[in-house]
Amino acid sequence: MTTIDREGCADRDRADPLAAFRSRFAIPDGLVYLDGNSLGALPRETMASVETAVAGEWGGGLVRSWSSAGWMTLPVLVGDKIARLVGAGPGEVIVGDSTTVCLYKVVRAALAMRAGRHLVLTETENFHTDLYVADAAARDAEASLLAVPRAELMNRLGDDVAVLLLTHVDYRTGEMHDMSAVTSAAHEVGALVVWDLSHSVGAVPVALGAAGADLAAGCGYKYLNGGPGAPAFMYVRGGLQDDLINPLPGWLGHSDPFAFEPRFRPAAGIRSMVTGTPPVLQLVALSSALDVWLDADMAAVRAKSLELTELFIMLVEQRCARAGFSVLSPREPSRRGSQVSLGHRDGYGIVQALAEHDVVADFRAPDTCRFGFAPLYLRHVDVWDAVDRLCTVLDQRAHLDPRFAVRAAIT
Amino acid sequence: MTTIDREGCADRDRADPLAAFRSRFAIPDGLVYLDGNSLGALPRETMASVETAVAGEWGGGLVRSWSSAGWMTLPVLVGDKIARLVGAGPGEVIVGDSTTVCLYKVVRAALAMRAGRHLVLTETENFHTDLYVADAAARDAEASLLAVPRAELMNRLGDDVAVLLLTHVDYRTGEMHDMSAVTSAAHEVGALVVWDLSHSVGAVPVALGAAGADLAAGCGYKYLNGGPGAPAFMYVRGGLQDDLINPLPGWLGHSDPFAFEPRFRPAAGIRSMVTGTPPVLQLVALSSALDVWLDADMAAVRAKSLELTELFIMLVEQRCARAGFSVLSPREPSRRGSQVSLGHRDGYGIVQALAEHDVVADFRAPDTCRFGFAPLYLRHVDVWDAVDRLCTVLDQRAHLDPRFAVRAAIT
Repeated sequence: MTTIDREGCADRDRADPLAAFRSRFAIPDGLVYLDGNSLGALPRETMASVETAVAGEWGGGLVRSWSSAGWMTLPVLVGDKIARLVGAGPGEVIVGDSTTVCLYKVVRAALAMRAGRHLVLTETENFHTDLYVADAAARDAEASLLAVPRAELMNRLGDDVAVLLLTHVDYRTGEMHDMSAVTSAAHEVGALVVWDLSHSVGAVPVALGAAGADLAAGCGYKYLNGGPGAPAFMYVRGGLQDDLINPLPGWLGHSDPFAFEPRFRPAAGIRSMVTGTPPVLQLVALSSALDVWLDADMAAVRAKSLELTELFIMLVEQRCARAGFSVLSPREPSRRGSQVSLGHRDGYGIVQALAEHDVVADFRAPDTCRFGFAPLYLRHVDVWDAVDRLCTVLDQRAHLDPRFAVRAAIT
Repeated sequence: MTTIDREGCADRDRADPLAAFRSRFAIPDGLVYLDGNSLGALPRETMASVETAVAGEWGGGLVRSWSSAGWMTLPVLVGDKIARLVGAGPGEVIVGDSTTVCLYKVVRAALAMRAGRHLVLTETENFHTDLYVADAAARDAEASLLAVPRAELMNRLGDDVAVLLLTHVDYRTGEMHDMSAVTSAAHEVGALVVWDLSHSVGAVPVALGAAGADLAAGCGYKYLNGGPGAPAFMYVRGGLQDDLINPLPGWLGHSDPFAFEPRFRPAAGIRSMVTGTPPVLQLVALSSALDVWLDADMAAVRAKSLELTELFIMLVEQRCARAGFSVLSPREPSRRGSQVSLGHRDGYGIVQALAEHDVVADFRAPDTCRFGFAPLYLRHVDVWDAVDRLCTVLDQRAHLDPRFAVRAAIT
């Protein structure tokens, strides 16, 4: 069995090709932040970008900044940046609205492309908002949603399925679908696949084009570091865009918004998926965070992500062997996202006690401690320190503190 | 005929009970900004609020700020601030999504409350995005949209109408509906009214409760000064909230978002209308802008708004009598919002030439020059200067410059 100490972790950090990225983020001193899969850290350059957008562009330029500062082009511009991270081409990704609204739009758009079919298939393990909004989208299109356990998905996939909706990397376990294989299987029965990339983008390599993916949506505030409530994105494969219908048509998705025409005449391509006025301040924040991403080599990110998650699992197993943890995430690297989930009956207390030791992770009911690893700003020593403090919590039985007997609504 | 000179305008500014508010906004020196009805000016305190949210709450607090900084409560908190400006009660207004998405949601919600009826009635003069999204909402609810000219609205209002959708203050002319009278007429035939308040809130007194109004949506980035792409708001009268259905259900509108239940179980009341993760940075900007508003007396705002628009009309008629303008806005104060629209066949060139003289207004096809008057930061001398520079433009025939022969896409 491999063993490693803190100095060994520091050696790995010195050899880390991504080490320089950490200084581009504002990470509070002493904090081990393992929740970048919930809200990504603040890139330092984002502070200046937002200040410029507020004081200079809004304050000084006022309404003129829609053209002079390029605000109107942000949904496409930021979309094109994301496209480079997910193996898509220019004009295949657009940014705006919340992830939930984007999911509604792409599920409806996909259903409209398979108008003769009336079934949206998904898995019961999918994130709950995906289930809610897909159910609504299906009903609005005179279709229905069927959720089956993951193990039954491929058996149920038949020629009555219009759309297969899956989250690429599971939010609870970090387990990853094989995007190419699933997409091919869906295409064989004539179905389209809608991928939710919320826990994939910036976490694992995504190759939408190479996988032949159809439509997707994803989140801007997790691994992408776009800030709290960052707008989400939508992807529609270029070859499908001639049949693209935005179910929430708005003036800025119109071919000529300032002609004020009474009938909706969609803009060409992905631009038709814009609904309302773009959230400029959040787009500016997301855009500057993406500039950090575009300097990083995604293969190096994936390699470091696997190193960090492997290291975490190994240290937990070595140092907390009798603590009662079960590893809920896949052990095969190829099936694992950039997180490790540990099951523990006192999981809630463990996460709360860790927070008091400056290790931020999160808890997902009923018993999952979720640790996210953002390779751009996490070090191997952070992994060491997290497990070290976990040992301290367990040794001191801090997780059994009566304060943690009742779960707070927001964890 | 009353006459006034610039010194007389300065006298009025000295007597203006709202004069002190101007210093709370960042207005570029020398600029006369008459486009606050498109994008409101930047409140100075917003700069600090956004900086705190970015550097302190996001950078320092990270994911913990959802509870520690109250991010999760922002949609309700900011909604309650807006409620005070529109004569609504706490828990009747919620903030999130773009105006277009909010309109979709309230029109669908209203249709669901009148399930036996299948018609949405609106006016052909309505803002085009209202027409697009109401058409989509109607179709999704197996209803249809009928748009008739304003003069025919009351005749067409019958017991087959589920929802009457109107913009309270017309974006093009500034003409205002009588909210109480229209609402009563709709209620007499059993219809609900959805009001679009985009050009009303912060511009004219709005008394939703007193008018018996049913549902509404409105914009955050115009007179409210919430910043470019600010989130919009929705209003649902308390008495209707037991029957409220969010057509775009998302996890944060769930009764217990962190229970991760597979079925959508709506939160009580207006909170069920939240769909995705709140856009925190834009909400913080809007919230601080509303704090300025809540210090202002709305009756004084209305009085000054009417003074400014009256003054503008009077000066244009006195000083540009033969320039070929027609006043498109109502002359009766009670029917006028906080804008003046002038028709002119060279309107596009006039607005462009004015911009080069540091007067920002906007143009709406085919021939409307639109001048918005934001009483919190505009002075009487600004109105004087705007008309003075308009005279200069016309005298110099600057609006006929060949550069303005072709209209730019974004004006």
